[in-house]
Amino acid sequence: MINIKFPDGSVKQFESGVTPLDIAKSISEGFARQVLAATFNDEEWDISRPICSDGEIKLFKWDDEEGKHAFWHTSAHLLAEALQELYPGIQFGIGPAIENGFYYDIDFGDNQVTSADFPKIEKKMHELVAKKEQVVRHDISKADALKFFGDKGQTLKCELISELQDGHITTYTQGNFTDLCKGPHIPSTEPIKAIKVLSLAGAYWRGDEKRQQLTRVYAITFPKKKMLDDYLHMLEEAKKRDHRKLGKEMELFAFSANVGPGLPLWLPKGTAVRNRLQEMLTRIQSRYGYLQVITPPIGNKSLYVTSGHYAKYGKDSFQPIHTPEEGEEYFLKPMNCPHHCEIYRVSPHSYKDLPLRYAEFGTVCRYEQSGELHGLTRVRSFTQDDAHLFCTPDQLKQEFLNVMDIITHVFSIFGFEYEAQISLRDPNNKDHYVGTDEVWDKAERAIIEACEEKGLHAKQVTGEAAFYGPKLDFMVKDAIGRRWQLGTIQVDYNLPERFGLEYVGADNKKHQPVMIHRAPFGSLERFVAVLLEHTAGHLPLWLAPDQAVVLPISEKYNDYAQQVARELNEKGIRTIVDDRNEKIGRKVRDNEMKRIPYMLVVGEKEANAGEVSVRKQGEKDGQSVQGTEKIATFAAKINALVEEQTKF
Amino acid sequence: MINIKFPDGSVKQFESGVTPLDIAKSISEGFARQVLAATFNDEEWDISRPICSDGEIKLFKWDDEEGKHAFWHTSAHLLAEALQELYPGIQFGIGPAIENGFYYDIDFGDNQVTSADFPKIEKKMHELVAKKEQVVRHDISKADALKFFGDKGQTLKCELISELQDGHITTYTQGNFTDLCKGPHIPSTEPIKAIKVLSLAGAYWRGDEKRQQLTRVYAITFPKKKMLDDYLHMLEEAKKRDHRKLGKEMELFAFSANVGPGLPLWLPKGTAVRNRLQEMLTRIQSRYGYLQVITPPIGNKSLYVTSGHYAKYGKDSFQPIHTPEEGEEYFLKPMNCPHHCEIYRVSPHSYKDLPLRYAEFGTVCRYEQSGELHGLTRVRSFTQDDAHLFCTPDQLKQEFLNVMDIITHVFSIFGFEYEAQISLRDPNNKDHYVGTDEVWDKAERAIIEACEEKGLHAKQVTGEAAFYGPKLDFMVKDAIGRRWQLGTIQVDYNLPERFGLEYVGADNKKHQPVMIHRAPFGSLERFVAVLLEHTAGHLPLWLAPDQAVVLPISEKYNDYAQQVARELNEKGIRTIVDDRNEKIGRKVRDNEMKRIPYMLVVGEKEANAGEVSVRKQGEKDGQSVQGTEKIATFAAKINALVEEQTKF
Repeated sequence: MINIKFPDGSVKQFESGVTPLDIAKSISEGFARQVLAATFNDEEWDISRPICSDGEIKLFKWDDEEGKHAFWHTSAHLLAEALQELYPGIQFGIGPAIENGFYYDIDFGDNQVTSADFPKIEKKMHELVAKKEQVVRHDISKADALKFFGDKGQTLKCELISELQDGHITTYTQGNFTDLCKGPHIPSTEPIKAIKVLSLAGAYWRGDEKRQQLTRVYAITFPKKKMLDDYLHMLEEAKKRDHRKLGKEMELFAFSANVGPGLPLWLPKGTAVRNRLQEMLTRIQSRYGYLQVITPPIGNKSLYVTSGHYAKYGKDSFQPIHTPEEGEEYFLKPMNCPHHCEIYRVSPHSYKDLPLRYAEFGTVCRYEQSGELHGLTRVRSFTQDDAHLFCTPDQLKQEFLNVMDIITHVFSIFGFEYEAQISLRDPNNKDHYVGTDEVWDKAERAIIEACEEKGLHAKQVTGEAAFYGPKLDFMVKDAIGRRWQLGTIQVDYNLPERFGLEYVGADNKKHQPVMIHRAPFGSLERFVAVLLEHTAGHLPLWLAPDQAVVLPISEKYNDYAQQVARELNEKGIRTIVDDRNEKIGRKVRDNEMKRIPYMLVVGEKEANAGEVSVRKQGEKDGQSVQGTEKIATFAAKINALVEEQTKF
Repeated sequence: MINIKFPDGSVKQFESGVTPLDIAKSISEGFARQVLAATFNDEEWDISRPICSDGEIKLFKWDDEEGKHAFWHTSAHLLAEALQELYPGIQFGIGPAIENGFYYDIDFGDNQVTSADFPKIEKKMHELVAKKEQVVRHDISKADALKFFGDKGQTLKCELISELQDGHITTYTQGNFTDLCKGPHIPSTEPIKAIKVLSLAGAYWRGDEKRQQLTRVYAITFPKKKMLDDYLHMLEEAKKRDHRKLGKEMELFAFSANVGPGLPLWLPKGTAVRNRLQEMLTRIQSRYGYLQVITPPIGNKSLYVTSGHYAKYGKDSFQPIHTPEEGEEYFLKPMNCPHHCEIYRVSPHSYKDLPLRYAEFGTVCRYEQSGELHGLTRVRSFTQDDAHLFCTPDQLKQEFLNVMDIITHVFSIFGFEYEAQISLRDPNNKDHYVGTDEVWDKAERAIIEACEEKGLHAKQVTGEAAFYGPKLDFMVKDAIGRRWQLGTIQVDYNLPERFGLEYVGADNKKHQPVMIHRAPFGSLERFVAVLLEHTAGHLPLWLAPDQAVVLPISEKYNDYAQQVARELNEKGIRTIVDDRNEKIGRKVRDNEMKRIPYMLVVGEKEANAGEVSVRKQGEKDGQSVQGTEKIATFAAKINALVEEQTKF
């Protein structure tokens, strides 16, 4: 008999050789049907693999990353098995699970494979699933592995094996297909009910552009047909909501090769959106006693030697800026905190001055490879909605609570659901962290208690804290279910120490303040991108660059249209006129693209009555026409809406 | 007889050998007494030097730079003459006139000279003046000059002579002192009525730190005693108003060696001032159709190759930023215009879209030697209140008028008097400029007409235009009479050409827009510095970081003071409390330093009556106490004042 411990701390006895699946069945058959993966003593463990010693078990279902990962890993083998049947003699590279699905890198030799072949591949995969093949794990010696894959002509696999240590090599087999693999897998391909081959791409073997190019086949699978349908629908939606596409259509931002990749140019309409977001945050933050500061875009080497960042500044960063004066070396600032520590140091502080909360919309530069740049979510220059709070250890919890209030308040303004994760220190690896046990315990307790007080169910992850302190990260869920990492709150003991920050306490002695880094958006670039994808470009009325566009049905009513726009603009409603010589249908379609909340169609009837025919953007056609209204009535309604929306 | 032309175009005949002084006398004796310098055919010309050919004359008085220059140049010789008498055997370097006075670089040998010797030197200078010595010009051959100065042991002068061309060497003599000098000088030292030796400094011979160090003696002279008194008073005032001192006392900005010299850290109170200035400009500019944009802090090399700046980027600039990716090279942006040209290029434009006015509070970096940095007026990183206007040639004049309105309106808000200068092309050197005669004529005419329409008497200076277009610069005069260059408006034909900017005209053909660069402040840093020196730190109420400070006369009234502050803050008046345990006199003195517009003293009487005792900052003591007022009355008065002040 062996003792198996569960995550809740309870311990049960089982016969040696019991599998995680057996253990799941001992809980309930229903639960066991859902279990896909396990860890045993934190080692990944097939749910069909026997356990022969005492230890701790964790079981994972589809909703857990670990469960999906095993499901898709097995699906990658299924894809390879199907391709082997369809294209005998092909060479296999690697085939991992990824965030959404999996891929396999293949050398197809002389075979021409295109997207036209996807249905054939999916069909073959379904046929193989129907055979209900078991996925079987084997330990194998290095010599045997080399012989086995060598005999099959799998030279890429042989190259991988040659680098492995004997005694640690395993294969997984299903039907006629055997792969070099360390697992974990689900016990059979049977649960794979829905299959979609998604795309092909080129990929160099081992990512090395000097090696042969393989074909990467991307696919995804699900345990239910409905899940695939939802996923494909989400992909379709995501494509429509791509912020790069919306940014262009709505004239919000642009990139130019001349300025450089990853360096956004904020166009007038985008700047207006961004500035309104800044104003919103500034207003909210000023209620919490934040003080705006401004610091320069560069810092001397000595600043980063002090902060400790210099030691980490490598060849993969923007390189230092030299000056004609000898011994001077500057860096584009990659973060604002060292500058803010210098501001703290400008004058001596008493405990009565604390907390001090320095906020800056600080533009920073961080080098990213040009191939990894993506719209506004992966850029080389961005503006953080940054702030650094300096407080006494006793004030930490209250400050943390206040920051949580700000962040969750901001998310609620945009209707984002959110999740949170607390990253704690690994107590078995204390050398890795700066700060005493006492301050870490105090800080971690402060964060956990703060989450409890706010009723926020935050996942606690041990060992994920930064070396300088614990943190709380927020993920938002957008309108089509995608998760985006946004806000973060980090406690820092390191920088106050390195910069020698001090305050005089009530005891008249010098103490070191605690520092909090925090950013509700992360960056304005990232937030605007997420907001565009979340709203599909239908920004809230208060935030929209233009709130209304007047569409005269013919040139005859251009003057009236201008008059309407003038009156509305005077009443504070951002209104433009589309007076192009185009048919009204075309004007409506074109302006749909710009996502202006209201289209005001004007013709003879409206001009005579001093009215506008109101069409609401983004509604289904039948609901979009809201009827005809007097200009002043429309203006009053819009202003009331905006006033309601901007009660931050 | 020769023909002498005057600046007004009139021509008079004189006998050959006539001097400028004679010519002045022919106008009036009174005028002649004021004339100090002249040019003949644009060559500097002593007013006592004979004229023997036809030509054009200009005569200069004390109020002209040229007049002061000759006066101070002769004064420098007077200083040298005095020093030679006091310290026989000293070596002379150079002794030019400068913006305020003059200096002479001297090798004093074994003589110890300190500021204690200044009265002695001044006395000697006055003695020499009393002799009414004439200043006499001599042409001299190179050989004779070398012999003359060699015999006197003036090796530094000999070094200078050895580099001069024979036939172009002159000396000036007064009494026993003869100097190598190309002039011009006033005819005698007699008009020098007021003398002040100001300071000593070290200076390397010929600015080369490898050569010997000389002592630089700074001094200033005036034709009237009262002028010197005013100047010394102004110096005293300037010292009190030094924005570096005020910035520290008012906690507006700071520098840190760690961040780097010339890189300002804007502290919370300074940031508040700066942001209010930005809001003011944004509000004014939005009325003129300006569109805010935001561009990144760096640009790719190709941007500056396109703009033409790359060719001028030298070893005296911030050096390029390299990246891990090959062939990539970035620059800290030294100006915003190339980025704005790229924004213009994002989409095609029709004449109907123009003018387009892109505004950005754009932070730029320009390298300055650390020895030349000075507070906020000479920095390495600053934020321009920048905008670039793109218009058709026909729209240029109206746009120019609008920009002038903005700039002069902004100056009037702060009570600055201003002067303007139009910089025109040199028509004899057209190769130096880009753009056709037609567009230059049109642009220059547009600027001149714009100034005329506005009734702005702008000095026209030929040959001072930038190579890319003419410009109009504004100088403001501060409260103690100093001049500061602030706003600028520049017309540019070059960048639209280089960036290939286009619009489709009414004729359906492609045209090139004209570009206007403009900045009312120049930079926020510079403007804040000038404003602090102008106001001696007494910022206008609407702009002051804190508008009122409550001073409880003892700790007993701290609660009431807090209540007053709370009520005032709720009413939008930025109010703080000084609740330190200090005597009221000390509190008043300390808060004077912070230049908070109102000090509200509260004690028993005020607490009982719900009142505050109002003391206005910066008034003479007798006028500063404004009496006692109800909190609400005071608040209403302040709010009314601010409302009045912010009717921009």
